[in-house]
Amino acid sequence: MNILFVFHILGVLLTCLSLTLLIPIPFSYYYHDGTAMAFIWSSLTCLLTGYTLFKLFKTKKELSVREGFAVVTFGWLVFALFGALPFIISGAIPSPLDAVFETMSGFTTTGSTILTEIECLPKSILFWRALTHWMGGMGIIVLSLAILPMLGVGGMQLFQAEVPGPTADRLKPRIQDTAKLLWGVYVILTAIETLLLMAGDMSFYDAICHAFATLATGGFSTRNASVAAYNSAYIDWVITLFMFLAGVNFSLHYYALKGRVGEYFRNEEFRFYLLITLMATAVLMLMNQGTVYDSLLDNLRYSAFQTTSILTTTGFGTADFELWPVLTQYLLVFMMFVGGCAGSTGGGMKVARLLLLFKHGTVQLYRLIHPRAIRLVKLGDKAVDPEVMQAILGFFALFMAVFVVASFLMAASGMDLVSGATAVIATLSNIGPGLGSVGPADNFAQVSEFGKCVLILCMLLGRLELFTVLVLFLPSFWRK
Amino acid sequence: MNILFVFHILGVLLTCLSLTLLIPIPFSYYYHDGTAMAFIWSSLTCLLTGYTLFKLFKTKKELSVREGFAVVTFGWLVFALFGALPFIISGAIPSPLDAVFETMSGFTTTGSTILTEIECLPKSILFWRALTHWMGGMGIIVLSLAILPMLGVGGMQLFQAEVPGPTADRLKPRIQDTAKLLWGVYVILTAIETLLLMAGDMSFYDAICHAFATLATGGFSTRNASVAAYNSAYIDWVITLFMFLAGVNFSLHYYALKGRVGEYFRNEEFRFYLLITLMATAVLMLMNQGTVYDSLLDNLRYSAFQTTSILTTTGFGTADFELWPVLTQYLLVFMMFVGGCAGSTGGGMKVARLLLLFKHGTVQLYRLIHPRAIRLVKLGDKAVDPEVMQAILGFFALFMAVFVVASFLMAASGMDLVSGATAVIATLSNIGPGLGSVGPADNFAQVSEFGKCVLILCMLLGRLELFTVLVLFLPSFWRK
Repeated sequence: MNILFVFHILGVLLTCLSLTLLIPIPFSYYYHDGTAMAFIWSSLTCLLTGYTLFKLFKTKKELSVREGFAVVTFGWLVFALFGALPFIISGAIPSPLDAVFETMSGFTTTGSTILTEIECLPKSILFWRALTHWMGGMGIIVLSLAILPMLGVGGMQLFQAEVPGPTADRLKPRIQDTAKLLWGVYVILTAIETLLLMAGDMSFYDAICHAFATLATGGFSTRNASVAAYNSAYIDWVITLFMFLAGVNFSLHYYALKGRVGEYFRNEEFRFYLLITLMATAVLMLMNQGTVYDSLLDNLRYSAFQTTSILTTTGFGTADFELWPVLTQYLLVFMMFVGGCAGSTGGGMKVARLLLLFKHGTVQLYRLIHPRAIRLVKLGDKAVDPEVMQAILGFFALFMAVFVVASFLMAASGMDLVSGATAVIATLSNIGPGLGSVGPADNFAQVSEFGKCVLILCMLLGRLELFTVLVLFLPSFWRK
Repeated sequence: MNILFVFHILGVLLTCLSLTLLIPIPFSYYYHDGTAMAFIWSSLTCLLTGYTLFKLFKTKKELSVREGFAVVTFGWLVFALFGALPFIISGAIPSPLDAVFETMSGFTTTGSTILTEIECLPKSILFWRALTHWMGGMGIIVLSLAILPMLGVGGMQLFQAEVPGPTADRLKPRIQDTAKLLWGVYVILTAIETLLLMAGDMSFYDAICHAFATLATGGFSTRNASVAAYNSAYIDWVITLFMFLAGVNFSLHYYALKGRVGEYFRNEEFRFYLLITLMATAVLMLMNQGTVYDSLLDNLRYSAFQTTSILTTTGFGTADFELWPVLTQYLLVFMMFVGGCAGSTGGGMKVARLLLLFKHGTVQLYRLIHPRAIRLVKLGDKAVDPEVMQAILGFFALFMAVFVVASFLMAASGMDLVSGATAVIATLSNIGPGLGSVGPADNFAQVSEFGKCVLILCMLLGRLELFTVLVLFLPSFWRK
């Protein structure tokens, strides 16, 4: 573990961040919102810090596994700290803690906000807020399909992207190739959604911000009322479709773009994800029909939107689901734990892990009556290595443990049971809104400072699949 | 799978039950409550059905593993059905569903009640109610230390009682020896508690009923206000002590009675159980001091009682903890999942399983940074077989899945989130009271019929470690 080398890499990352901080400036000039200087100062701070770290600490050729963990965790943390600068300098979010909360929520594609009034903020600031989502989503795709599988985190080995190109032993060329291809898919999908939204009478600015938030399964909107503000069935359906796509493993999209559309249905996780989405929509419709919505078409539109929004952990809203029947809320809370597919930008426990847990359960039962039979858990045609299965089971137990401990801390910070527990799952699964005082019609502004710190940590833990962060707390991690 | 042989064994069990149905009759005569005939009729019905089943279906020598599962599950079910007869015939609980709920709650040592007014019921009926607890607790000790380990259920292999005596291959003699020794311990502890309670000015009747409910970690009281009715620090402390003891693996008590008291502290699960109890009491005290209780001694008394009552899954009450700070309630809900030690009469997930889950989590983390290191999870000095660890992880996942599905069904039956979810965990962990409309000051009378059926199933599932019941739902279980 060479911490100086980690600093060196963080320096590189910060230098990159300083460039992205310049992207909102054209919007600032176009809309005359007077915040261009805030971005320039933020970018300079970033560049200076980054370049200093880069130069000060010596470089070596390859990252070790431990350094990989440190880079990923500290990278996200450093981005949340430095990405918060424009909010603070422009005065849009005066409290540094709130600004870091908002930025972490952005980069982890969570979408929980501490803002009570969104539309009055400078346009370029809101664009930066959406951009943090989009960059976070980009990071996650590569992380979950290329880096985490190599680090052996929580069963992610199963979901490694099978990408063509040089298969040399060294990590770098492979990751770079994978990254380029997947980012290509990500950019194409974002562009298509932006155009489709513009066709629905959204301005280019609103369209690209919402496309960023959709593809990243983030959920930040430029409007106080979220997607409900547009009151358009067309826009709702476009966003529903792209939220669904953002919850799919991005290597499947890659194959589809190359003409191999059948790969979707050959993938067992995708089939299960589709099944859950359809079933949950149907159940929500059944409960809302006649009680909340009288028109079947309206019911389908709002139920499908909410199902996809929660299941993919996006968190956009077109309806205040706290006004829906209690049972629907229970179903939504359950879906908050599920999340998207592995290798998507969605958070949560991931569809494949739950599918494998379910299969593991039935195999355990089967073995009780056939103790000598050998029956492995399978995903698709491949048997799942028992080691990988143990990692997945460990992930599940750890996820529940973090949920319990964090919920307890939220209760200690003075929140009621339902608000505290759903605030934790909303951030741990990177969704956005919870229930109660953090429900879809409310926000996280009134959470105590201590509570906000807990939730910031939850976002990071959830986004980096727990292990990546928790491993840093092992004493033996830091030993030579 | 020879279902006829299962019927034969159930016949034997029912014949035994018919004898125990005669035990409350002396109390009926002593208190002139006029319900002796209800017991006689119930006993006769039981005897007739049992003897018919016994004679009608042929016998063979040994139980197969599958038949073992069927006997255990159907045995508990049949006891709940036939044990409900005195309640129905005497008119104490006119609704058959309510009577079965109360009896299942008794035999599974849960302690959830549908009774709104307890003290006006015939004394012999209340004695029978306490006796169902005591017999259920007896069944559970043998089941968890001798039968389930052999059936290989959910990692219970770890907790097999190491009992002296013939170690022949055949199941019967070993189980019988184990049973006799453990029951001896159980009877001795019950007798001591009864005497100690009588020394605190309880009547013999009240003392034995409460001793039954304590040792079984059941929780049925003969008083409307539960143990609070006696308003005696002495009685509270005696019951706290015996609740704690009832939550300990009974093979440790056996060693202690033979003079090997050190075995308690050599047992890792016991040490962890003691630690949790002390820590939870301390945290509760911290939160209640000055807010609920001004006297340190009162605080200790009520906090220790409530911790032990929930943690051991007894469910007795000396305080309405719904009036305590929100945070204490959160802690209590968390403890509801933990439960007692394996091999005790306590329910829940069991201390050892949680301890091993925690260890598994740290080993998983450790392996990320030392991928080639071999590090097994240990309990005490012994390494835990990976197969057993998988069974424990599977148990945890299954427990959470049953909790989620059952909570959803309770919400569907019209209960609010908190009441529904805590009603499920209160029955699944065999505790008794939950929060909200099923809180310590309320009862389960107002739950819908559908909801009561769900909770009855939860009690059975939780008490029989899930697998024993769920395995019957596999199609291959019933195939030749």
